[in-house]
Amino acid sequence: MIKAGIVGGTGYTGVELLRILARHPDVAITAVTSRADAGVRVDTVYPSLRKLVDVSFSQPDIDTLADCDVVFFATPNGTAMQMAEALLERGVKVIDLSADFRLQDVKEWQQWYGMTHACPDLIKHAVYGLPEVNRAAIQQAQLIACPGCYPTAVQLGFLPLLEQGLIDSDHLIADVKSGVSGAGRKAELATLMSETGESFKAYAVSGHRHLPEISQGLSLAAGQAVQLTFVPHLTPMIRGIHATLYARLQVGAENIQALYEQRYQNEAFVDVLPQGAHPDTRNVRGSNNCQIALHQPQGGNTLVILSVIDNLVKGASGQAVQNMNLMFGLAETTGLEIVALYP
Amino acid sequence: MIKAGIVGGTGYTGVELLRILARHPDVAITAVTSRADAGVRVDTVYPSLRKLVDVSFSQPDIDTLADCDVVFFATPNGTAMQMAEALLERGVKVIDLSADFRLQDVKEWQQWYGMTHACPDLIKHAVYGLPEVNRAAIQQAQLIACPGCYPTAVQLGFLPLLEQGLIDSDHLIADVKSGVSGAGRKAELATLMSETGESFKAYAVSGHRHLPEISQGLSLAAGQAVQLTFVPHLTPMIRGIHATLYARLQVGAENIQALYEQRYQNEAFVDVLPQGAHPDTRNVRGSNNCQIALHQPQGGNTLVILSVIDNLVKGASGQAVQNMNLMFGLAETTGLEIVALYP
Amino acid sequence: MIKAGIVGGTGYTGVELLRILARHPDVAITAVTSRADAGVRVDTVYPSLRKLVDVSFSQPDIDTLADCDVVFFATPNGTAMQMAEALLERGVKVIDLSADFRLQDVKEWQQWYGMTHACPDLIKHAVYGLPEVNRAAIQQAQLIACPGCYPTAVQLGFLPLLEQGLIDSDHLIADVKSGVSGAGRKAELATLMSETGESFKAYAVSGHRHLPEISQGLSLAAGQAVQLTFVPHLTPMIRGIHATLYARLQVGAENIQALYEQRYQNEAFVDVLPQGAHPDTRNVRGSNNCQIALHQPQGGNTLVILSVIDNLVKGASGQAVQNMNLMFGLAETTGLEIVALYP
Amino acid sequence: MIKAGIVGGTGYTGVELLRILARHPDVAITAVTSRADAGVRVDTVYPSLRKLVDVSFSQPDIDTLADCDVVFFATPNGTAMQMAEALLERGVKVIDLSADFRLQDVKEWQQWYGMTHACPDLIKHAVYGLPEVNRAAIQQAQLIACPGCYPTAVQLGFLPLLEQGLIDSDHLIADVKSGVSGAGRKAELATLMSETGESFKAYAVSGHRHLPEISQGLSLAAGQAVQLTFVPHLTPMIRGIHATLYARLQVGAENIQALYEQRYQNEAFVDVLPQGAHPDTRNVRGSNNCQIALHQPQGGNTLVILSVIDNLVKGASGQAVQNMNLMFGLAETTGLEIVALYP
Repeated sequence: MIKAGIVGGTGYTGVELLRILARHPDVAITAVTSRADAGVRVDTVYPSLRKLVDVSFSQPDIDTLADCDVVFFATPNGTAMQMAEALLERGVKVIDLSADFRLQDVKEWQQWYGMTHACPDLIKHAVYGLPEVNRAAIQQAQLIACPGCYPTAVQLGFLPLLEQGLIDSDHLIADVKSGVSGAGRKAELATLMSETGESFKAYAVSGHRHLPEISQGLSLAAGQAVQLTFVPHLTPMIRGIHATLYARLQVGAENIQALYEQRYQNEAFVDVLPQGAHPDTRNVRGSNNCQIALHQPQGGNTLVILSVIDNLVKGASGQAVQNMNLMFGLAETTGLEIVALYP
Repeated sequence: MIKAGIVGGTGYTGVELLRILARHPDVAITAVTSRADAGVRVDTVYPSLRKLVDVSFSQPDIDTLADCDVVFFATPNGTAMQMAEALLERGVKVIDLSADFRLQDVKEWQQWYGMTHACPDLIKHAVYGLPEVNRAAIQQAQLIACPGCYPTAVQLGFLPLLEQGLIDSDHLIADVKSGVSGAGRKAELATLMSETGESFKAYAVSGHRHLPEISQGLSLAAGQAVQLTFVPHLTPMIRGIHATLYARLQVGAENIQALYEQRYQNEAFVDVLPQGAHPDTRNVRGSNNCQIALHQPQGGNTLVILSVIDNLVKGASGQAVQNMNLMFGLAETTGLEIVALYP
Repeated sequence: MIKAGIVGGTGYTGVELLRILARHPDVAITAVTSRADAGVRVDTVYPSLRKLVDVSFSQPDIDTLADCDVVFFATPNGTAMQMAEALLERGVKVIDLSADFRLQDVKEWQQWYGMTHACPDLIKHAVYGLPEVNRAAIQQAQLIACPGCYPTAVQLGFLPLLEQGLIDSDHLIADVKSGVSGAGRKAELATLMSETGESFKAYAVSGHRHLPEISQGLSLAAGQAVQLTFVPHLTPMIRGIHATLYARLQVGAENIQALYEQRYQNEAFVDVLPQGAHPDTRNVRGSNNCQIALHQPQGGNTLVILSVIDNLVKGASGQAVQNMNLMFGLAETTGLEIVALYP
Repeated sequence: MIKAGIVGGTGYTGVELLRILARHPDVAITAVTSRADAGVRVDTVYPSLRKLVDVSFSQPDIDTLADCDVVFFATPNGTAMQMAEALLERGVKVIDLSADFRLQDVKEWQQWYGMTHACPDLIKHAVYGLPEVNRAAIQQAQLIACPGCYPTAVQLGFLPLLEQGLIDSDHLIADVKSGVSGAGRKAELATLMSETGESFKAYAVSGHRHLPEISQGLSLAAGQAVQLTFVPHLTPMIRGIHATLYARLQVGAENIQALYEQRYQNEAFVDVLPQGAHPDTRNVRGSNNCQIALHQPQGGNTLVILSVIDNLVKGASGQAVQNMNLMFGLAETTGLEIVALYP
């Protein structure tokens, strides 16, 4: 059994890790930390886990965590970078769900995240945990930077085209809609039911932290810098991300549907729907799947790519477990064979 | 492998059976019928089941269904009674999720359901599929009448008290709230998002079909006829039932919390919360659990019992699979170890 | 023009007062206070009021407020009692939407609200602002204690029966469901969309602060102490309260429907629906109406009364304006002729 | 008093007309037709209108309707064109909320709407009822083609730029999100709460009927044909449209914020927010307002325009009343001074 620890177990990505790992056949959850709730049983805070998780929250202590084989950071940005090095030195694999190791350019990171990076030298050793791109590197990695939710949906949607150079990479648009759980489990006015229910809005249009992360990934795929306009929106639902992507096809680009089907044919968690389908976020709710569909309205040269995920699963904790499976040589789908909850 | 058929696979209890059975280690889904969608792949109608259910809807044909070991009826009332006898005669076990075999008094059934029963003689052979009451009989049964969603939540809430004669059974009140999926997957004005979203109402206060079913079960437990006022409500959410039950304690009734804990201590799917807790429907969403909590406000003699289930799981398809497991000698929890989806 | 001030303008009852008063033909809003947002334009915080409310939040200063003809307190409990006396002394009418002056028994108040009352002598001068009971006193009042949202829905539902002594007042049950805006505009985990959306729960079953307020009102109507079990629930919607009330009819009690119609025939904001109807909270959303319907299931002696209001209007700010209209000799409906927003 | 008739009073735009007109000081509602509900009181179907609308639904009879001064068609497409001519001949002004007279090119209309137009000659006499563009013509019109909901939000968002030739009109993108009431009050699976709640999807990406209507309006504004990619989405809320518009600025285009403020400075119902704001659909819910904000992310040449309306008000019935006010020489805002319902 893999001994797994979770730092920051009281947020939504933390409890989602617990939901998945509680049924993972090869994992024993040995430590779940929370400064605020240390000493409290996990299933008191999360009654959905009664009879499943028989531990209490503990203080985030390096010595305790060092007994784990793998430690997940489901923490706010800025925490993992304080503890990762010590754990790695003691042979613990680290999977960071926060943004601390996602950007290879530390200056850009510091600009967007507004703090000094605590261990800039470690960044180059971190592997960006998008298995559909970096599978081989993940298998060898000691430190994983798990992708953000928006970046996962957008990258999986654009990758096949950029890898083949089939679109104008100077004018990409990603209009993306997220459920409110993406904002985390924090006491804030903006995500109250009375503020977000029955309403819809864009936010952070001038610049969202996921923009440099997406641009980095897309540029790597394209082999050159891309120009992306990224507009996130808050949707009155709890889980789900729907990315609507717009790209202009290069002259002569053809058989896009076949390209996508081929690109993802061996991927367990990326599912290309028949041409003209409309993926619905409910069809991936609670599962680790990404569903993608392609449209070319009025036969013009603007391609519309629709890409949906559950922000807490493929967009966070499910993808983290997918990375763990790869790192420990398990079947990639172990523990992730969860069917989406419809209706 | 148990060969399972589902009649009426396009409703919410049908697709929920598919969600559960698709991952059940001992079941192969061999037939899913739908008159309207015959010939169409199941995962075309339900993209959440892509890569999981590789069959098409077929016509509800007795000969095809007779090849199954067990057939689930996830049909409107009045269908199972037309086909059950023929299947039973050919050795197929039948689990009916509709109301056709729930009431032992056929006259009462005909009055509430407004039709003539097609096979009244079969009713007495049907076992009411509430494992927490009828486990032994279910293990021997060929025909199961699966309880309704409201009846499951209400009976599990009242049973310990009535079995022990600790409450005044002449003045029971069940104020119950359901998500809209309980109304089924039917094109109707009343359950449109625009009609049920952001609103709350009672319905069928003058008499709901689940009243005689609940009364039958409670009277059996009490050993005498009970008097119940049952008020169902429609809640602006998709899944979940919350029963708020009111009963007057007999003089001297004590240790109610301990009674409940003892009554359900060996039940995998009934969980008595600490005294004073407030169960939340989200904590059982997608799972087969019932969570119960007890309150005695201001120390008076009115007991308030809170009982929550997912109407589509413990209130329908999960309970049906629980029955199937018992009928086939499997561990009762097989295929039902699904963690609730929070948030 | 009546010069109106609002203390605590950044909460939901505050902004709801602004919504109503912005179109009130006889009112000029002259001061809106908020410690946190002093100096900020009201329509910056509430863009729904752009072009309608041309003031900025100010500090809650007695001298400024003393220029008003009436001051509304849309504040947390414990604020109005600090300022009311000074305003009353300077001839300003005070309408308190909080609980500071609702309970005539100051000891009971202190027990439920956990603080020492700042001006206990003022309590007896406060008029409980339920116009359907206290209209004459309200017209003469200088200080109004506006009823809570639950108390309004429950009292209007029970009053006709208690006034006539037609029910067993020792066993009243009020099972009440509220939208989340009733919890106020506060940064709290419990009312996040991710916590309250798609879920339903009871809360404060052991004792809610509105219990003594309801009991006080019902006992006054009955002419004797009543015994009430009150269970509030949180519903996944923003606005609306649905009270489901249970009472046992005295022998010989008849013509209850006619009694209710007669009792409320001259009330502009209480509407008795035809017998057997099911009021829906959406039908009063945004309006000052209370809709009530009566049921006697199975012809038994348990009466079920359904009573719905918008918690922020008839349950708070609309009722406050109704009180103001009475205090200033205006038509009671002035500014309140707002049609419910359906769908 | 203007005698107003409504054909098709049982849909959402019909009941929304009733909500607005019931309080309009210059209108008497004299006929509300519905084939299905003829003879039934309007307030039986819509209890939100009790005490406000004292008529019953009637059959859609030309002679009855001819007594009106104005008749609104809140009907499915294809009905108004059958009756408009007869009413116009008898001197009745007609305001059609359906699509029958929106497209000047009858061939294109027939292609998108799949039927033969009943009165093609009348089309050229119809005035497209977007007051911000056609105010003078509306004042003189006998027949108004009220804009669709998507077209209203998108046109108001793009107009200032196209009128001034400041953007590349060959590559416009409109990513638009609508609440489910836009689908109408029809018994359909796709808009059930269980299907649309807690989920998000695009639909009709290959071609939506509002595309030619939007293109017609934008081309008129631009003075040349524009190329638009239009992707509508279904959002889990009842009311509201949020248009996210993308356009590439021509070299040298500047002071866009000032341009918008100037363009709409005299418009009562179009409100340009401060640069960088994020309009929220709740802030216009129930009101006739359009709120617009502008962004130029990272200072690039892609302009992002955010435009929100309530689809049933400015996107349908409110705009229809705005047209009526203009046609009858009333102040344009009469009866439309409704404050948005927040929260």
